[in-house]
Amino acid sequence: MPLHLPNAAPADAAPANAVHGGPTREAIRDAARRIGPHVRRTPLLRLSGTDLGLPQDIVAKLELLQASGSFKPRGAFNRLLSQTLPAAGVVAASGGNHGAAVAFAAQRLGVPAEIFVPEITGAAKRARIEGYGARLVVGGAAYDEARQASEARAAATGALLVHAYDQDEVLAGQGTVALEWQEDAPDLTHVLVATGGGGLIGGMAAWYAGTGVQVVSVEPEACPTLATALREGRPVPAPVGGVAADSLGARQVGARMFAVAKDHVAAAVLVPDDAIRAAQRLLWDAARVVAEPGGATALAALLCGAWRAPAGARLGVLVCGGNCDPGSVAG
Amino acid sequence: MPLHLPNAAPADAAPANAVHGGPTREAIRDAARRIGPHVRRTPLLRLSGTDLGLPQDIVAKLELLQASGSFKPRGAFNRLLSQTLPAAGVVAASGGNHGAAVAFAAQRLGVPAEIFVPEITGAAKRARIEGYGARLVVGGAAYDEARQASEARAAATGALLVHAYDQDEVLAGQGTVALEWQEDAPDLTHVLVATGGGGLIGGMAAWYAGTGVQVVSVEPEACPTLATALREGRPVPAPVGGVAADSLGARQVGARMFAVAKDHVAAAVLVPDDAIRAAQRLLWDAARVVAEPGGATALAALLCGAWRAPAGARLGVLVCGGNCDPGSVAG
Repeated sequence: MPLHLPNAAPADAAPANAVHGGPTREAIRDAARRIGPHVRRTPLLRLSGTDLGLPQDIVAKLELLQASGSFKPRGAFNRLLSQTLPAAGVVAASGGNHGAAVAFAAQRLGVPAEIFVPEITGAAKRARIEGYGARLVVGGAAYDEARQASEARAAATGALLVHAYDQDEVLAGQGTVALEWQEDAPDLTHVLVATGGGGLIGGMAAWYAGTGVQVVSVEPEACPTLATALREGRPVPAPVGGVAADSLGARQVGARMFAVAKDHVAAAVLVPDDAIRAAQRLLWDAARVVAEPGGATALAALLCGAWRAPAGARLGVLVCGGNCDPGSVAG
Repeated sequence: MPLHLPNAAPADAAPANAVHGGPTREAIRDAARRIGPHVRRTPLLRLSGTDLGLPQDIVAKLELLQASGSFKPRGAFNRLLSQTLPAAGVVAASGGNHGAAVAFAAQRLGVPAEIFVPEITGAAKRARIEGYGARLVVGGAAYDEARQASEARAAATGALLVHAYDQDEVLAGQGTVALEWQEDAPDLTHVLVATGGGGLIGGMAAWYAGTGVQVVSVEPEACPTLATALREGRPVPAPVGGVAADSLGARQVGARMFAVAKDHVAAAVLVPDDAIRAAQRLLWDAARVVAEPGGATALAALLCGAWRAPAGARLGVLVCGGNCDPGSVAG
């Protein structure tokens, strides 16, 4: 059920600090300077269509190689480094990757962290959070319950709440993925990005707005937060399920990302879980890259035909996380 | 039992087409042009010492992301593209990675391939060889027997023999790893490279000879081919065993690589198997990189202290292969 939108900026538009609800390019540049000493500039890997069994080459950005195993430390560090941290430390709710990133950032900056996870969060993500020295709390059956528990805790202790996606500093931090990518691969015409709560694609679309680069959202059919919001014209609750729910299983997209996405996301497509599993296997077989389901979701759109590249397109595909049992990708 | 040699070129020496038995820089540049359309330029990942629990940062070259899962296609393509291929195709003997690379190159160039493997070659490597359409033959208990069987087969059929390490075109092809690395990270002072038969480090040392960059060989204590050859003054048989034997388990180094290594490898150190396993775990935990034992061997030298960086060193560490069961790295 792909949803193609006609509203992306034309290719000849000049880059601009677009007027939208998301971060400005300058805020994203500031974030890059702020977080630079703490996060990795993740590498690109150019893969031939022949090697992938696809009609076109891709430029994969290997954000799974980021510290803590996903893009999330970019937003977490930008939030933590933008203010004076309370002695009570920081609190976050997370399906796992954001929690690991906040725990990692808190450890590096020397403040305590409490991370609220839903029951579906797997052993690999739990171990990572605790490995960074955070206190782990199971806060309910799904992400939304864990989020409510985390907000109550922050209100009670005075700790700084680090939202998984719907805060200005978080969007600006995640937008640094796009800043790096455009510097390192200025020839791309389209980038495919997985969407959960939307902090990543919101920050990236804010960076690319006005540049002519088309940002394509890919979501599991079982977690269609952005496609649903675009259809309804506002963020609304969507189903949460499927193989990528532990990283893409937000109940709905954030208001801040939606303000950007409604005008600056070129298409929002959905993929079935079996395409996500196939993308995980392909990344391992063709490139020895271990992506978690959410990390393989963007590539899945090319495998199952949910999105087709126009002639002459030069494609970027983001591999945004690798926090899974590595043995799970080869089956 | 590290063996440090005092014979590396001084840091202020000019790059040169050094007079040694290995490939010239021009031959390596030619190889890069020849194989460029068929292999990947593998990315670098800068990792902080803090993230690794080490006293220094490293610049990892992720050669495990190469097509077929190791550096080996560089030499294989250079050998196959340097001559007219016979109708009988190509034959190779291999612990696995070279065989996969030759099978891959033959498939891409449209010629048949027969690959002789020893019994120790694991299921992942066998599946990869057969997945590229080659005929797989188990040629004996260890690599050396498979090599003899492959040579007999090539003599009988007229197929082109592609040696795993001791041919001029193979050394020049593997040397392109160093060419890329120096272009992409010209600031390095030392590069750590795992040694088996020595085609990789031989080609790389030939590239770096005279540049001031020190090439450090790392081998498992259980497969000490280069350390033994340097001690004896010539290639001689060494024990074959341990966790990395399927990729580093040559019986002895090649004559061509030794002609380079005796003058242009700065140190040849040995690491225990448990350091190799620890390096595999660290690459996964800190960077979501899945290295096979041979691929993690260079990093192991830093973990166990077999080699210590001098003050001010800027270290490159090659991760040269990832052909293993991915679940095996996380334990």
